[in-house]
Amino acid sequence: MDFQKIINEIYTTCNSETDKGKVANYIPELKKIDPTKFGICLNTLNNNTYGVGNFNEKFSIQSITKVFALTLALKLIGEKVWKRVGVEPSGDPFNSLVQLEFEKGIPRNPLINSGALVICDILVSNLKNPKEEFLGFVQKLSNNNAINFNKTVAASEKKCGFKNAAHINLMKSFGNIKNSVETVLDFYYHMCSIEMTCNELSSSFLVYANEGKLPYNNEEIISKSIAKRINATTLLCGLYDEAGNFAFKVGLPGKSGVGGGLVAIHPNKYAIAVWSPKLNKKGNSNKGFKALELFTTKTELSIF
Amino acid sequence: MDFQKIINEIYTTCNSETDKGKVANYIPELKKIDPTKFGICLNTLNNNTYGVGNFNEKFSIQSITKVFALTLALKLIGEKVWKRVGVEPSGDPFNSLVQLEFEKGIPRNPLINSGALVICDILVSNLKNPKEEFLGFVQKLSNNNAINFNKTVAASEKKCGFKNAAHINLMKSFGNIKNSVETVLDFYYHMCSIEMTCNELSSSFLVYANEGKLPYNNEEIISKSIAKRINATTLLCGLYDEAGNFAFKVGLPGKSGVGGGLVAIHPNKYAIAVWSPKLNKKGNSNKGFKALELFTTKTELSIF
Amino acid sequence: MDFQKIINEIYTTCNSETDKGKVANYIPELKKIDPTKFGICLNTLNNNTYGVGNFNEKFSIQSITKVFALTLALKLIGEKVWKRVGVEPSGDPFNSLVQLEFEKGIPRNPLINSGALVICDILVSNLKNPKEEFLGFVQKLSNNNAINFNKTVAASEKKCGFKNAAHINLMKSFGNIKNSVETVLDFYYHMCSIEMTCNELSSSFLVYANEGKLPYNNEEIISKSIAKRINATTLLCGLYDEAGNFAFKVGLPGKSGVGGGLVAIHPNKYAIAVWSPKLNKKGNSNKGFKALELFTTKTELSIF
Amino acid sequence: MDFQKIINEIYTTCNSETDKGKVANYIPELKKIDPTKFGICLNTLNNNTYGVGNFNEKFSIQSITKVFALTLALKLIGEKVWKRVGVEPSGDPFNSLVQLEFEKGIPRNPLINSGALVICDILVSNLKNPKEEFLGFVQKLSNNNAINFNKTVAASEKKCGFKNAAHINLMKSFGNIKNSVETVLDFYYHMCSIEMTCNELSSSFLVYANEGKLPYNNEEIISKSIAKRINATTLLCGLYDEAGNFAFKVGLPGKSGVGGGLVAIHPNKYAIAVWSPKLNKKGNSNKGFKALELFTTKTELSIF
Repeated sequence: MDFQKIINEIYTTCNSETDKGKVANYIPELKKIDPTKFGICLNTLNNNTYGVGNFNEKFSIQSITKVFALTLALKLIGEKVWKRVGVEPSGDPFNSLVQLEFEKGIPRNPLINSGALVICDILVSNLKNPKEEFLGFVQKLSNNNAINFNKTVAASEKKCGFKNAAHINLMKSFGNIKNSVETVLDFYYHMCSIEMTCNELSSSFLVYANEGKLPYNNEEIISKSIAKRINATTLLCGLYDEAGNFAFKVGLPGKSGVGGGLVAIHPNKYAIAVWSPKLNKKGNSNKGFKALELFTTKTELSIF
Repeated sequence: MDFQKIINEIYTTCNSETDKGKVANYIPELKKIDPTKFGICLNTLNNNTYGVGNFNEKFSIQSITKVFALTLALKLIGEKVWKRVGVEPSGDPFNSLVQLEFEKGIPRNPLINSGALVICDILVSNLKNPKEEFLGFVQKLSNNNAINFNKTVAASEKKCGFKNAAHINLMKSFGNIKNSVETVLDFYYHMCSIEMTCNELSSSFLVYANEGKLPYNNEEIISKSIAKRINATTLLCGLYDEAGNFAFKVGLPGKSGVGGGLVAIHPNKYAIAVWSPKLNKKGNSNKGFKALELFTTKTELSIF
Repeated sequence: MDFQKIINEIYTTCNSETDKGKVANYIPELKKIDPTKFGICLNTLNNNTYGVGNFNEKFSIQSITKVFALTLALKLIGEKVWKRVGVEPSGDPFNSLVQLEFEKGIPRNPLINSGALVICDILVSNLKNPKEEFLGFVQKLSNNNAINFNKTVAASEKKCGFKNAAHINLMKSFGNIKNSVETVLDFYYHMCSIEMTCNELSSSFLVYANEGKLPYNNEEIISKSIAKRINATTLLCGLYDEAGNFAFKVGLPGKSGVGGGLVAIHPNKYAIAVWSPKLNKKGNSNKGFKALELFTTKTELSIF
Repeated sequence: MDFQKIINEIYTTCNSETDKGKVANYIPELKKIDPTKFGICLNTLNNNTYGVGNFNEKFSIQSITKVFALTLALKLIGEKVWKRVGVEPSGDPFNSLVQLEFEKGIPRNPLINSGALVICDILVSNLKNPKEEFLGFVQKLSNNNAINFNKTVAASEKKCGFKNAAHINLMKSFGNIKNSVETVLDFYYHMCSIEMTCNELSSSFLVYANEGKLPYNNEEIISKSIAKRINATTLLCGLYDEAGNFAFKVGLPGKSGVGGGLVAIHPNKYAIAVWSPKLNKKGNSNKGFKALELFTTKTELSIF
């Protein structure tokens, strides 16, 4: 299959349509982004890279980082993770707090904000230098030591993160946060501020397509079984309350971030990352979603 | 009517029954209280005081203070208060957060925690020295300058107040808190830590029975109309999700606190305060509720 | 006090303002009503009647009938009523079904639809000829044998009563409805279809102002204590999620109906009924609410 | 791979453990079932069948039938289905009614009860003889004309189906049910009463593994794209609020029924059905879940 031709076509098609999405406006630093940025990058397990558009420019990966955090937490404490966070889709956008209240501070899954905060709490408890070690882990996955936090973005988010503060305090009241609220939030906002290019992002997700092994040296980061489970969780919970629609139309495990990034993997085949800052009403990259839908339609490759 | 005889009988009756209530255990400082304390004090508008038991011992009035805070806020900014907080009963205990989320950060009423936090925010915005001036206002209502905060209790509550932190951060995310979360919480915990005796508490509530005027010098604190409205709000919202049961069985506007205090007023007649630290399942003083039920049954005085 | 002059003034004031309310449109038969109808009638315990406008025209009392149903149920089985329905305000309009689900099919109070359906179920179980006997009871309260159901209205409501069907089926699934869903709904829609004039309505509510005795012959229908409790329930739950606002602005126990009726009582003094079909956003008569607010403001008579 | 050996081992392993599940007790007819029944049947696309235990005994497939209903609805009216029902996981068990209320009568997905009722309404509107034609469609999928409804089970369920009646009436109140409540419920209960053996059930699901074509004659029932989308929906919504756990541990699209049936497919490979009547706390076959988890673990075949 001529992947380069396919992504070029998708790039052209997506650019020919008016993008009705909107750049996230609740994080001051992210508002400044050029809304016309658009890049696609595909990395296959047989070592090929195909890119188009702004696929070599850095952007804030935001929530996508939660998949890395979950991976590291599973590596550190294994199945014990699931005592503090569930594996079920969150369902409703409107009642995440009531769900937390009803289920005694146990978040639905590790990819919604409350669940990611619990994962952060686990990492803070189990790492000596949480921020440094987490960054090192992500650098290793992507085989790239230049990957870094954007401290301005982290500070900007922290200043207006009242909703996250509400969630973490509620979980703390149920005893499901062990460290101080401030420490965990600080780690969380740093973690979300990591910047990557589409190429770096899809490279770093190849580990999930490769049964848990680093594609560049075959080192096992997590077992095949855990890799499969992370993929299942990503498919069911990766796009908030649009996960069903994504599984339905794209048919791959994928994760989005409010910075406009969207990454998906096909087990044993490839990882693909798209970046376009304008978000649809559900908070996922509008063009990114469209591009991946076209990709699995054109290639007829989906897990279903 | 021989009020002293009546409250003596009630005191004896209540003490003859086993109290199945439990002292609030989530505020470390309050756990230390002697659970057998029990006092009743009635103050009438014609200047009589009737007391029995530990009615001259100080206790933490906790949420009862919210009525004073509402009064001061209405005095300071009048009807504008109602743009930021409602006047409806809260209904369900289990979904206060979802209600806040659904109604865009506007709490149901000023006597639930979230509503009281909004009132605190108003006071912090409109007073130069919020804590001092609020204390002065309460001292004036009770005609007693010895009334004070208990800073140990305030600090103790603050340390474990994660649920309040969840609520205030959620409201802040909706723009319904203007000052910093820390400042408002600090004011709130001080306000709740005020200590009074039953006698002081019922004296300070006489203003609501007296159409807004101080009983000891006839100074108008609030208009007759506002006093009536505060009483209506107290009746409907003063005992959390047991307000209906209290109106049903006692039939007076009343307010409870987690320290075991319970105060009620009969317009144009009297104010009565009870203190007994063991709480029923709804968080209201078990003996206090029983005592007031007996009081309106025996005296056949209720507003209905 | 010159009550006739006062209600005449209120009538003129209310008519001089544009009524932004809307006639209920979900019951086909009620839509046909002339929206300009407006009547007020005051009946005092010392036997005086004051009326203005269309106070002698019949209208559909709808939910107001629930107070009569509760009264009869309490007369028939006493305190056992409270095992199947609560006495707390319902709080939120948006989650009545989830509240029912959460609280295992026990409705919050007898004046919301689900609670009234439980009361109907009790009446159906405890009366030989439920519809006839209920009608007879209401005729007795109002001292008027001409009061009757409007079978066209009952049939019209039944045809589109899917929401009530949802509630009753949910309660049936929890075992809190003993008779067949059809029988209870049939009784309910008949009960709601009773027609009265303002004069008849306020006359029939005098029993609640008169400590449970019929004003025209002093027969005790219910005890003083039960009458007080019904009044407390009416105050807290009579205007759905506007009960707080009504207590706050009017300060009397009151009950509204979707037909535009609104009735309130002042214990030991009077009953007053207003009819104006246009409803505010909360489903209560817009002019009716305003008229009663003016009435207690002008007379300075409220229970607070 | 020696599939027969594998399922034999699984059969033995599962039988050696105490089954703590419980037979569904809310449908009188289903309570009578022998709780020790246990059968597994695997059908592969290359025409092999492997069975163990009671795999040739009929049982009530219950909710599994919803996948067939969705398939037929998509065949009849295509994408228009999605205007009346969503594709997102339902999330919370406790608030299906409030979700329906909040989202104006649009159910989350076609595999929860409310969604299946909407699908039934679509089928009733678009088929001349709904029950006959639906049965014919299922017979065609399974290549077996002996498949039939169990009218005793249908009648038994209908008699106690108050929760479904609550849901359908609520949707009717929002206009999302076009036919009469009775007609749709009658169709629904018939549809759920279909009986199949494990062998028949897995055979009839091969169409979803076979890109929408009947495995026995290659006739296209639905397009490849629709087959993939049904599989995605099944994966995300097939096991109620245990869908995440199933995807996580089994990693295949699967659907369960309250009769103890559980069926899953591996695209382009096979379909597998298990029957064991004891259900876990989430309402899914306890042994069935375990058996499928062992199957994908042993075969290392999952879509992730």
